[in-house]
Amino acid sequence: MPDTPATAAILVIGDEILSGRTQDTNTNHIAKTLAVLGVDLKEARVVGDDQDEIVAAVNALRDRYDYVFTTGGIGPTHDDITADAIAAAFGVEIDYHPEALAMLAARYKPGEFNDMRKRMARVPLGAELVKNSVSTAPGFKIGNVYVMAGVPMVMRAMMEAIAPTLRHGAPVLSTTISVEAGEGKIAEGLARTQRDHQTVAIGSYPFYRDDKFGVQLVVRGRDGAEVEAAARAIEAMLVELAVSHARVTTQ
Amino acid sequence: MPDTPATAAILVIGDEILSGRTQDTNTNHIAKTLAVLGVDLKEARVVGDDQDEIVAAVNALRDRYDYVFTTGGIGPTHDDITADAIAAAFGVEIDYHPEALAMLAARYKPGEFNDMRKRMARVPLGAELVKNSVSTAPGFKIGNVYVMAGVPMVMRAMMEAIAPTLRHGAPVLSTTISVEAGEGKIAEGLARTQRDHQTVAIGSYPFYRDDKFGVQLVVRGRDGAEVEAAARAIEAMLVELAVSHARVTTQ
Repeated sequence: MPDTPATAAILVIGDEILSGRTQDTNTNHIAKTLAVLGVDLKEARVVGDDQDEIVAAVNALRDRYDYVFTTGGIGPTHDDITADAIAAAFGVEIDYHPEALAMLAARYKPGEFNDMRKRMARVPLGAELVKNSVSTAPGFKIGNVYVMAGVPMVMRAMMEAIAPTLRHGAPVLSTTISVEAGEGKIAEGLARTQRDHQTVAIGSYPFYRDDKFGVQLVVRGRDGAEVEAAARAIEAMLVELAVSHARVTTQ
Repeated sequence: MPDTPATAAILVIGDEILSGRTQDTNTNHIAKTLAVLGVDLKEARVVGDDQDEIVAAVNALRDRYDYVFTTGGIGPTHDDITADAIAAAFGVEIDYHPEALAMLAARYKPGEFNDMRKRMARVPLGAELVKNSVSTAPGFKIGNVYVMAGVPMVMRAMMEAIAPTLRHGAPVLSTTISVEAGEGKIAEGLARTQRDHQTVAIGSYPFYRDDKFGVQLVVRGRDGAEVEAAARAIEAMLVELAVSHARVTTQ
């Protein structure tokens, strides 16, 4: 019996997501990374640049899940309040981290390392730095909370640094069957297959493309043989219904 | 003095978002629609296809905000559990809605309107249908919760039907200044400008493009004159710092 998989939540911080200015892509990247690591992402939230909102969300999520990943709000400008909010959530002081300060000081020309840039070296007391290959400004980890940048390129580098330190589980395997039919036609057989294969999750995702209805059926589970058995049961059901279909990915 | 703006939250429902299979774009579309309507989007959440999780999130959000918009989980398949979860959240029964049943029955050929397709006519007691121009299967509204499809094309049509019924407020106006400099160089002047113009929100969004650092500064507010005054103050500050910049959008 394998260990229970670790659980995780994402907290995206930023007015620009809630105003519609920016399409968040960080959640999807973190979700894919966690799936490969076998960590179960259970929830994602977006809140604005508001300390009370950030504190409430961080505390709700860190109590409930093994890991929390935040993105956004750790730059040098006045609207970057994540580090202060995380310190408040943990009830600890915040101060300049000597190593972060040294790293940043080395990056700037004399006279350019101003007070606002120094803000990027402030972390809650007790936090460890999350260094990364793209930006000199680090993220940080405190308790089970990983605080990352919002700029996707920087966030990805931070996630790459964090990934090896997480408790890995058996990755979730999936296989996808593309079906040329509406969902309603196959829904009954699909429900039966799900009842018969309870160790996997069968998802049904309709799409319209080139004026045609179709469905992607995704079987997900941690046991490859069980995923394959459920996929074959679906294929047999589709053959019986004389519905065109094809296995498109298995990973 | 205008009325206080209505507040809103989004709840995205679906394992496919948390597994990383699907990049959510519905949140961004709803966010943009609400911004135009002058409704303040305060929070967004993503939960999986799990009744307890959906119930808890819906109840937390509907208590707190004027409107809640959900997407996903209202199709005909076994993993479409949103209608049942919403009924449970409101503590009401769920049953076939006669009008939805009639609309769907008219869509299918004789013999094709099977039990799974009929599931799409089930709504919590007391709910009103949200019809739309794309799909015969309706969404629904109960209390302050609007339940929409997950397929973006259908969700957009539902949002279009819902929008005129919402309490509109003064739309949030914004103007964007693109700056050829790192954030740290302008952060101090920017913080000063924000302190001097407290009726607007100034956001600073760094980017890397064509190997160059830059920042988009966004001034947002409901009073056009105040937005313009803050934008001019930022431009004056940038001129003083001899930093190249350009006004890129005002809307």
